[in-house]
Amino acid sequence: MRLPGRVKLIEVGLRDGIQSEPRFIPTERKVALAHAIARAGVPMLEATAFVHPRVVPQMADAEAVTARENRAPGIAYAALVPNRRGAERALAAGVDEIRCVIMCSETFNHRNVQMPVSESLRQAAEMARLAHEAGVRFVGGLGTAFGCPFEGAVDEKRVRSLVAALVALGVDGVCLSDTTGMANPAQVERLAGLLLDQWPELPVILHFHNTRGAGLANVLGGMAAGVTCFEASVGGIGGCPFAPKATGNICTEDTVHMLHEMGVETGIDLAALLDAARLMEETLGRELPGQVLKAGPRSRLFPAT
Amino acid sequence: MRLPGRVKLIEVGLRDGIQSEPRFIPTERKVALAHAIARAGVPMLEATAFVHPRVVPQMADAEAVTARENRAPGIAYAALVPNRRGAERALAAGVDEIRCVIMCSETFNHRNVQMPVSESLRQAAEMARLAHEAGVRFVGGLGTAFGCPFEGAVDEKRVRSLVAALVALGVDGVCLSDTTGMANPAQVERLAGLLLDQWPELPVILHFHNTRGAGLANVLGGMAAGVTCFEASVGGIGGCPFAPKATGNICTEDTVHMLHEMGVETGIDLAALLDAARLMEETLGRELPGQVLKAGPRSRLFPAT
Repeated sequence: MRLPGRVKLIEVGLRDGIQSEPRFIPTERKVALAHAIARAGVPMLEATAFVHPRVVPQMADAEAVTARENRAPGIAYAALVPNRRGAERALAAGVDEIRCVIMCSETFNHRNVQMPVSESLRQAAEMARLAHEAGVRFVGGLGTAFGCPFEGAVDEKRVRSLVAALVALGVDGVCLSDTTGMANPAQVERLAGLLLDQWPELPVILHFHNTRGAGLANVLGGMAAGVTCFEASVGGIGGCPFAPKATGNICTEDTVHMLHEMGVETGIDLAALLDAARLMEETLGRELPGQVLKAGPRSRLFPAT
Repeated sequence: MRLPGRVKLIEVGLRDGIQSEPRFIPTERKVALAHAIARAGVPMLEATAFVHPRVVPQMADAEAVTARENRAPGIAYAALVPNRRGAERALAAGVDEIRCVIMCSETFNHRNVQMPVSESLRQAAEMARLAHEAGVRFVGGLGTAFGCPFEGAVDEKRVRSLVAALVALGVDGVCLSDTTGMANPAQVERLAGLLLDQWPELPVILHFHNTRGAGLANVLGGMAAGVTCFEASVGGIGGCPFAPKATGNICTEDTVHMLHEMGVETGIDLAALLDAARLMEETLGRELPGQVLKAGPRSRLFPAT
């Protein structure tokens, strides 16, 4: 099994994780969570999305969450943006990275943003230009990269051609998202390998949901292809709109636990990360899917008598 | 990533899965579950344990569950036995395979059966002899093979020497159990690889718990080493006595789903297996950890409008 020496994890709990939470989480609590995540040594946070508050009410405080006086130290702030207006807001807020998401399947993209993929790509080009003019990194996200809940299989050639289009925009990285948890490890290894064969220097980020239980197995599939950057959410929060009872994003602390046990470094302090996960659990007021949160790390021993 | 063309799964839900359930499951329901599992094409069932009913009350109906008139067709029946008396009962019941479990760590073995590992091995020799005289397969199980919740790390040399002792008894296979969910995929690949290097013909079975979320990742680790037989429980039931809120055994239907998606055959009908998992969910009267049970298989598509 091919393993890198080190992996970079991006925390997405404050964006993908909470975006569908029906109860608005007070800004000061989001800020406290960001600080707790930063204290654990997580290198990057997708902190919010600059979307219209009518579309995602939970993200209505994007400016406040990313305001300089509220920022946690030592962690990069990324923000998701759906369009030019979002990009302008994010750049005004001074985030370190902006990211778009285009769905690989036309059906899902239309459901998501009421436009064809070609128009989403055109807007991405505009956002990339704005970001780069401001000296800010721009990452192109591709959703439903491993399957679409409407269309089923997504052709790997289509994913590759969309990556090519993003590369042509000069993106600073590409994030392949398994939006509804349809990926399997062999597919991940194959698709990521195919991209890295063609663009060996391209930073590839993988974003998995544990919807069908294979989330951490898919991380292995990604590492087998040479990927060293993954997105995850504390407590395993988040979800899939088509599987309401299933778990969400892969869980950051479970991922860190597995990687550290395998000898793969992340630079993250697991104990401090578990503190952040407990703060998230307290915030949401329910038991979260994360397993290490329940069982404790492997190193937790018990008295024999 | 090294993948076999086919994997054999052994269903352990009716033994490891339910053994700690506080409410006794009526024998006819256990029999119905066995039939449902058999209908899905699962090749082998660890159907019960022939232990003293005071020790494991849920297994008090071992004879009835394995009685000829109650058996499901087309599936092999295995039973766990703790000692000579258990082996005699299991052989009288006419099961196809008997299996023992010896803990790799002295502390856990003593907690489990109040005797040193050396004495457990002596009794295993006796059980193996009885089984083979009866023409019945005998599998030697090694618990805490990837770590002990009392002692911590378990030396791989110790596991290897215990496997050597079992091989010397002429066992028909060795099952390495991650009793409390402490394994990681790199460790699994290394330890299983080490055993298969030394005993290339030895049938090695791996038994994982998803206690810390890495269950299916560990299956990949096993396959990377060349292992093609794994144990799992429908619905992901079972658990770890030291992590009461954590999930249990790896989930059979989640494992089947991932393997089939990867192109690895199991001979199991996923839809029929989900029926068995739903029957288990109804039997236990609570939501089970299995993810595919909640999300449906990847092939389940949604109307776009």
